[in-house]
Amino acid sequence: MSSDPLVIFTPSGKRGHFPTGTPILTAARQLGVDLDSVCGGRGICSKCQITPSYGEFSKHGVTVHDDALSEWNSVEQRYQDKRGLKAGRRLGCQATVKGDIVIDVPPESQVHKQVVRKRAEARDIVLNPSTKLYYVEVAEPDMHDPSGDLERLRMALAKEWQLDNVTVDLPILQKMQPVLRKGGWKVTVAIHLGDDESPNRIMHIWPGYYEGTVYGLAVDLGSTTIAAHLCDLATGEVVASSGVMNPQIRFGEDLMSRVSYSMMNDSGADEMTTAVREGMNGLFSQIASEAGIDKQLIVDVVFVCNPVMHHLFLGIDPFELGQAPFALATSDEMRLRAADLELNIHPSAHVYLLPCIAGHVGADAAAVALSEAPDKSEDLVLVVDVGTNAEILLGNKDKVLACSSPTGPAFEGAQISSGQRAAPGAIERVEIDPVSKVPRFKVIGSDLWSDEDGFEAAIATTGVTGICGSGIIEMVAEMRMNGIVDAPGLIGTSEQTGSVNVFADGRTNSYLVYDGTYKGGPRITVTNRDIREIQMAKAALYSGARLLMDKFGVEKVDRVVLAGAFGAHISTKHAMVLGMIPDCPLDKVTSAGNAAGTGARIALLNTDARTEIEQTVRAIHKIETAIEPRFQEHFVNASAIPNAVEPFPILNSIVTLPTATFNTGGSGDGGETGGRRRRRRA
Amino acid sequence: MSSDPLVIFTPSGKRGHFPTGTPILTAARQLGVDLDSVCGGRGICSKCQITPSYGEFSKHGVTVHDDALSEWNSVEQRYQDKRGLKAGRRLGCQATVKGDIVIDVPPESQVHKQVVRKRAEARDIVLNPSTKLYYVEVAEPDMHDPSGDLERLRMALAKEWQLDNVTVDLPILQKMQPVLRKGGWKVTVAIHLGDDESPNRIMHIWPGYYEGTVYGLAVDLGSTTIAAHLCDLATGEVVASSGVMNPQIRFGEDLMSRVSYSMMNDSGADEMTTAVREGMNGLFSQIASEAGIDKQLIVDVVFVCNPVMHHLFLGIDPFELGQAPFALATSDEMRLRAADLELNIHPSAHVYLLPCIAGHVGADAAAVALSEAPDKSEDLVLVVDVGTNAEILLGNKDKVLACSSPTGPAFEGAQISSGQRAAPGAIERVEIDPVSKVPRFKVIGSDLWSDEDGFEAAIATTGVTGICGSGIIEMVAEMRMNGIVDAPGLIGTSEQTGSVNVFADGRTNSYLVYDGTYKGGPRITVTNRDIREIQMAKAALYSGARLLMDKFGVEKVDRVVLAGAFGAHISTKHAMVLGMIPDCPLDKVTSAGNAAGTGARIALLNTDARTEIEQTVRAIHKIETAIEPRFQEHFVNASAIPNAVEPFPILNSIVTLPTATFNTGGSGDGGETGGRRRRRRA
Repeated sequence: MSSDPLVIFTPSGKRGHFPTGTPILTAARQLGVDLDSVCGGRGICSKCQITPSYGEFSKHGVTVHDDALSEWNSVEQRYQDKRGLKAGRRLGCQATVKGDIVIDVPPESQVHKQVVRKRAEARDIVLNPSTKLYYVEVAEPDMHDPSGDLERLRMALAKEWQLDNVTVDLPILQKMQPVLRKGGWKVTVAIHLGDDESPNRIMHIWPGYYEGTVYGLAVDLGSTTIAAHLCDLATGEVVASSGVMNPQIRFGEDLMSRVSYSMMNDSGADEMTTAVREGMNGLFSQIASEAGIDKQLIVDVVFVCNPVMHHLFLGIDPFELGQAPFALATSDEMRLRAADLELNIHPSAHVYLLPCIAGHVGADAAAVALSEAPDKSEDLVLVVDVGTNAEILLGNKDKVLACSSPTGPAFEGAQISSGQRAAPGAIERVEIDPVSKVPRFKVIGSDLWSDEDGFEAAIATTGVTGICGSGIIEMVAEMRMNGIVDAPGLIGTSEQTGSVNVFADGRTNSYLVYDGTYKGGPRITVTNRDIREIQMAKAALYSGARLLMDKFGVEKVDRVVLAGAFGAHISTKHAMVLGMIPDCPLDKVTSAGNAAGTGARIALLNTDARTEIEQTVRAIHKIETAIEPRFQEHFVNASAIPNAVEPFPILNSIVTLPTATFNTGGSGDGGETGGRRRRRRA
Repeated sequence: MSSDPLVIFTPSGKRGHFPTGTPILTAARQLGVDLDSVCGGRGICSKCQITPSYGEFSKHGVTVHDDALSEWNSVEQRYQDKRGLKAGRRLGCQATVKGDIVIDVPPESQVHKQVVRKRAEARDIVLNPSTKLYYVEVAEPDMHDPSGDLERLRMALAKEWQLDNVTVDLPILQKMQPVLRKGGWKVTVAIHLGDDESPNRIMHIWPGYYEGTVYGLAVDLGSTTIAAHLCDLATGEVVASSGVMNPQIRFGEDLMSRVSYSMMNDSGADEMTTAVREGMNGLFSQIASEAGIDKQLIVDVVFVCNPVMHHLFLGIDPFELGQAPFALATSDEMRLRAADLELNIHPSAHVYLLPCIAGHVGADAAAVALSEAPDKSEDLVLVVDVGTNAEILLGNKDKVLACSSPTGPAFEGAQISSGQRAAPGAIERVEIDPVSKVPRFKVIGSDLWSDEDGFEAAIATTGVTGICGSGIIEMVAEMRMNGIVDAPGLIGTSEQTGSVNVFADGRTNSYLVYDGTYKGGPRITVTNRDIREIQMAKAALYSGARLLMDKFGVEKVDRVVLAGAFGAHISTKHAMVLGMIPDCPLDKVTSAGNAAGTGARIALLNTDARTEIEQTVRAIHKIETAIEPRFQEHFVNASAIPNAVEPFPILNSIVTLPTATFNTGGSGDGGETGGRRRRRRA
């Protein structure tokens, strides 16, 4: 056994004997302990801060004496005077070993920090960014041994940081010589770390030690909105978030109308590409300005989007996505440069688009898979990203299946007579009194129920303007639970239902939710046509999920994850009453929020996650609902509320649904609406 | 031994037994015989043409019967009817083995063709281009197994051509889907073949079988002129050549005046970068138009240039090259895209700049090394590229040394009182009559000597306008041989020299070459100042070569290669009388023409040559003349004609130089001029 002092690192538990005088940073590197450093141990960057522990450590079998480390030296003293070290901290590159010692590496001193996610059930993100900073001292030129400045910079990077195969963009090369001289041959470089296919690339160069950081963007490019998170690549923190409407909205609200626009107009696809890129650049300027940073410091961007947005953003005509066999131009991940996409950030910023799963299941679904990791789940999980198209994943660690289903925009409040987007004044929660059959509700912007004191005052500025997506789901479910709507989806008459709110409305009945006309506001009702729209949307969603269950060979799932902004606001009980999702214990239905956006952030912060999702996507089994005969059958069955044939035993143990039916003749509604839905997609 | 028929390929000599019915192309591939094919054996491209030989082959030990190959089939018949096959030729993919057979692969059917160089002593270029064409049949999309069109194209390339890791530029991806459908899922792609650091990259895609080819440019970017060769990358042939003046001339005739311009003007370097790139684009348009091709088909460009042009072309301020220690921004080879340099060809055409050897020895010298291959020479060869700066290489297969020496523009006719560039009317050859001491000469544009009948008529249109570089060398050498100029470089008086052409001209004497004033033309003379200019230039050249000989530890060289346009016109005897080059048998002094341009063409046509020259350049030992004390001593000695101290025994065995000297006092000329030369460089 060595007589050299023993150095033990926590939390890793790595340990080794080192000669007296060995800097802690050196010991950490030799043991492979994750201890950060940008300046390479020169006492400049202070990234290698550690906390020595003293006393008796029976667990480790050592006693650490007060003199186990070298005394505080002048470099540490200077740093302390200038910036201050936290109590008990030392600089790992300055403090040297004198005796047995236990060293704690605090999280902020680790390169591969954990970026903690707010959700308890979600795994943490391990920081492993594409681009890191390195401080180096470069040899001066020598006429006796001529070599270029770049070659000597490369030598320094190879020697000090073991970085080989380093290349440089021309704009950096163009300004490198004066920067080297200004820094007295000491520079900080930002290097995009390469892989098997690409070299390490110098993205920035600064004279001397650069105090700043570099940034990345995680972008969720949706059909309706574009949302971006600006992240510090050294800490993983989100420093600013922002969103804009997708300017393509003016070419069509939903994706298929945009595909049609490109089919009908020769330069239609180009116009839409220009529009989305301009919108993106506006968003990037806005977010950089909000964070107060130079856009040139944005060196990495990850995009997630559905296949049509994917193509339009890349400048590929989405023509083929509008017709069978729905062939993508490319389904694999894309690695590009910002300049390729005319993005106004660092021109050679690396751009990464997650792979698409299939012609209707895009990189956004891949991002959801990365965030929710069904492929790592022990139990069988159904992940549903609810939007205009629902992307559905079903699987566990053995196998993952995926499909998409054309729900249409009803869940977003569109195509509903009193529907609207989620905004102040929109009804978001509904309860119908089981006896009086009169509704009460909450609107966005107020916590009061509509029958509570102060409600009128609370909504004075917003009014009650309509019903948003989560509101309409609760509305229809409450109507079903209270016998106002029957299982096939017909609203009964006032007499049949015992509700004064029901009134005859042409050949069908409607239900009055709120009459604001007394003060010039709207009269908010639910028509039988609205019920039909919700039936079609939820049937599309359910039948997609059911088809995957067929393919998996199961009759039930262990848990359901609702992704998407909409999923965050939905009442799981009401969703199950509607039969949107398979029968499942309510506490096993959770919301993942914007899982696609989270997936983008994971891929941005951890480059290993990119390789991981590429492998996962290749392993996912894709199901094309359009060519599955059973999809149509499931759709027809799922048009009933909750379902014409499936039992929903867990739901029935919680609620008892009325069995009355109001239909007086045969109904072909389900089949008719299903046919219409098919056409909308093609 | 196999009972299958024996197939023998010539000229490779490769042989093997193959079952009856095996196509010749298949046999060739299995044996690794270099037989071309673009269509993969589908009888479309006709690149696999072979010539079967029949009869008795005692050398190979086989007899080939008339029915050794399958009969002419319908594919061959169709090809014959449409385009015609040369007599005796078959399509290798259609003709199948029936009996023992000898197959000759004609040169044009080989992928790695030899591109024959005109010079007997130069090695041939083996064609191995960066970009090749491949015809593939792509699987159609299938909803049951969704994958992108690009992914299926990649699969086809991997399966049919063993091309993995294929990537694509966004502009190609954008148009790929309609091209695939137009070609009925059959396409031809042009692929830039990658290496360890870069993937295979689709540069072009055409529907069906593409009959055309792709092109590359070899560019010699000189201080004065830019010359380009457009080459067919499938055959290696030069299809067009063109040149333009370097538009940077307006910022300064020589390199150092351009460096000064960049030092004195804030945007000077940018202006010069813009100018040279514009000039380049003009040249590319001109050469493409001359060849009648689309510039988008130019997918590869190789540049050679000196370090200052290298930096200015890349957009790097050459400031550091204007002062010790002459640090290059980068000395290694550069791999860029056309768009990086704003070149108006295929935007992602690959651009390759050869490595620089040192701050004063550029990629042009590397190209000369590639063309003349001193590193492969058995005997010791001195390679001199004569220009405003002379680049000098000395070596053999054991070691190569390199330096540059600032000869100045005198060899190009500049700074000579009657000097001019080589153009019609310029004196290029001179003889002085040993008895009368009267000169006769030839001018560019006429084969007649000036004392021959018909000379006046022959030069009627051009006149006699001045003396070009090769003319002034012969002039000074003839004056030295005929006792008009002494060894230290003074022109004697008319009496001392016995020449009526000598006349007093201020404090020195001058020599009248031609008086055209009688018809309004110039009076062409050689002044003692002209002699001094030539002495400085040749002393710089010689002392660089001599310094390398010192470093190599030799007193003589086995042979001398003169590269550069100037080298092609120089009289080796006169050059040696002047003492420009070391003493050497005259038949061992050869001209290589534009060796830098040839080196560029080699690097363009054979990508392996790029790796080769990179290794060679790294192994070359660079000598910086500015810091070598002996350079100054050699310079002073070499100011004398031919040399103050060196014996030149071979020269003395051919000519006897007069020993008279005309100086009446001490001379510090050599030292003074040497000092001035040093300043010019710094």
